[in-house]
Amino acid sequence: MKTRSSAQFVRALLLASLAVATHAFAQTDPLPSWNDGAAKKAILDFVQATTRQGSPSFVPPAERIATFDQDGTLWVEHPIYSQVAYCLDRVPDLVKAKPELAKVEPFKTVMSGNREAIAKLPLKDLEKILVATLTGMSVDDFDAEVKKWLARAKDPRWKRPYTDLTYQPMQEVLEFLRANSYKTYIVTGGGQDFVRVYAEATYGIPPEQVVGTVSGTSYKYGKDGKPYLLKDPKLLLNDDNAGKPEGIHLMIGRRPYAAFGNSGGDRQMLEYTKAGAGTRLAMLVLHDDSAREYAYGPARGLPPTKVGTLTQALYDEGKKHGWIVVSMKDDWKRIFTFE
Amino acid sequence: MKTRSSAQFVRALLLASLAVATHAFAQTDPLPSWNDGAAKKAILDFVQATTRQGSPSFVPPAERIATFDQDGTLWVEHPIYSQVAYCLDRVPDLVKAKPELAKVEPFKTVMSGNREAIAKLPLKDLEKILVATLTGMSVDDFDAEVKKWLARAKDPRWKRPYTDLTYQPMQEVLEFLRANSYKTYIVTGGGQDFVRVYAEATYGIPPEQVVGTVSGTSYKYGKDGKPYLLKDPKLLLNDDNAGKPEGIHLMIGRRPYAAFGNSGGDRQMLEYTKAGAGTRLAMLVLHDDSAREYAYGPARGLPPTKVGTLTQALYDEGKKHGWIVVSMKDDWKRIFTFE
Repeated sequence: MKTRSSAQFVRALLLASLAVATHAFAQTDPLPSWNDGAAKKAILDFVQATTRQGSPSFVPPAERIATFDQDGTLWVEHPIYSQVAYCLDRVPDLVKAKPELAKVEPFKTVMSGNREAIAKLPLKDLEKILVATLTGMSVDDFDAEVKKWLARAKDPRWKRPYTDLTYQPMQEVLEFLRANSYKTYIVTGGGQDFVRVYAEATYGIPPEQVVGTVSGTSYKYGKDGKPYLLKDPKLLLNDDNAGKPEGIHLMIGRRPYAAFGNSGGDRQMLEYTKAGAGTRLAMLVLHDDSAREYAYGPARGLPPTKVGTLTQALYDEGKKHGWIVVSMKDDWKRIFTFE
Repeated sequence: MKTRSSAQFVRALLLASLAVATHAFAQTDPLPSWNDGAAKKAILDFVQATTRQGSPSFVPPAERIATFDQDGTLWVEHPIYSQVAYCLDRVPDLVKAKPELAKVEPFKTVMSGNREAIAKLPLKDLEKILVATLTGMSVDDFDAEVKKWLARAKDPRWKRPYTDLTYQPMQEVLEFLRANSYKTYIVTGGGQDFVRVYAEATYGIPPEQVVGTVSGTSYKYGKDGKPYLLKDPKLLLNDDNAGKPEGIHLMIGRRPYAAFGNSGGDRQMLEYTKAGAGTRLAMLVLHDDSAREYAYGPARGLPPTKVGTLTQALYDEGKKHGWIVVSMKDDWKRIFTFE
């Protein structure tokens, strides 16, 4: 009996100190990498309005869902999406396994190493590369391959692992929302299985909270008689544009209270979120910091881009519907954790 | 400062008492509706082995996933699946809205009220009824319609709402696993959107933890300009048989450590679960209690059935692979909460 009581006591003490620590955290600035301004205030006000007992906009903890686009919202998406870098890097191994591919486009161009030619590959050719490198293997083999790549691949500008290139201010938003009982989800146009490999270590987001573009799998048996899942080329969900709210319904089944994006592919997710009843938060990250990161739009006269396009029309529409625009230049004190 | 400190104190006290309550619960029998026997012992041993610090089979909390078939595993599936009852009950309203259907099969037969003829409808006709009653409306309208039906529909034998017909022993397993940091999921051949409507109130399982047969949705705009999701007839996942592990990968992205089923449709889920490394639990509920519930197989010489078939071959295969068979008659002290 004595042991049991003291175990109870220790557990109670631990939980109590945790409560104090959590509480203390709430007293300090939960968003230290954000400059004071409308964007930071909007986040703080939103959390206050939806979580304070007695607030007219109070949201029960079970319904607190927040969704985040990944590329360009949680981490760097220029000059190309990290997943595309992965797929291109996989081509030499692919050609090694099937030498006949060396003479076939688009693999021939990728093998040439000619960056300009690779950048000009039409979308159809890019799709061929994605299908060849993202499907046709077991779920476990794919997972292991991505892990291996992430450990050695480096972003060309910062010479750091891609997983270092997450935005510190957004990491703070994820933490802050979770500390207030929000479930945080990634809702990405990128591959669901790809992002799942690192989302937990990189963002504290478990695999089951990653919604992405997803192909089907087939249940198969290996030579050892053991079952495994084979990644099929059959597209189940293109989690971009209208596919984002559709993916949210498929995987979550509730409308988010907060959503964060940065480009045209996020329009419907932000619109759907903001159209819900009560207090909702829709945020649009504007890449307007060429010195510390990149600057692209073409909204606000920023240079046009093919990766993460944000048009002036969408920018204006967002403003009209009460979306909050985050200026990386003005709203973020620092961009990366390693700064 | 004074208010803040006392708030801290109250919070700490609440958490401490919660800890004591949780601890006290762990000391009492977590499965009071289970008779002592191999099945109960298997559940207790599994949780002990996977959650005790220092155990060679310890599973980190983030990876603790348990999946449950619904029909016949968590609640009654005879004489027909509740969802089929819902679809049949919706036909009169459907015909009211589109009177021309009254002359068309299979709607004509359903409208006749002839139970024998309805029971004999071929699968193709049943599918027509499912498509007509489960798709073509907004996600929100469907949700409201199912809620309305659940509030008034009654099981023909027990004259109680369907949601009363959950198995108390399985409710205890759900609770016990959750108290040990397992995330509990429903993985059902039934409709994902249908089960989501009541899963939280009925099983404590939130919508995002319901994996089911699922059709796509389309993002649309209403006359008021507001976006909504329309339920499409396009099947994305048939969450039965091999579709269960495929659905688990799609929606969860990890292999379960424990899985519970009762019929042929659960075979691959149990097999996939049990094939994972470490200690895994696969359980098969055997309906062998015609007095308190139903008896059907045809395994173990039980009467054959079309709803929830469990063959002798699967029963034997399960035994060979170390699945635990739960006899409703012998292992369950009581079946329903209302008993």
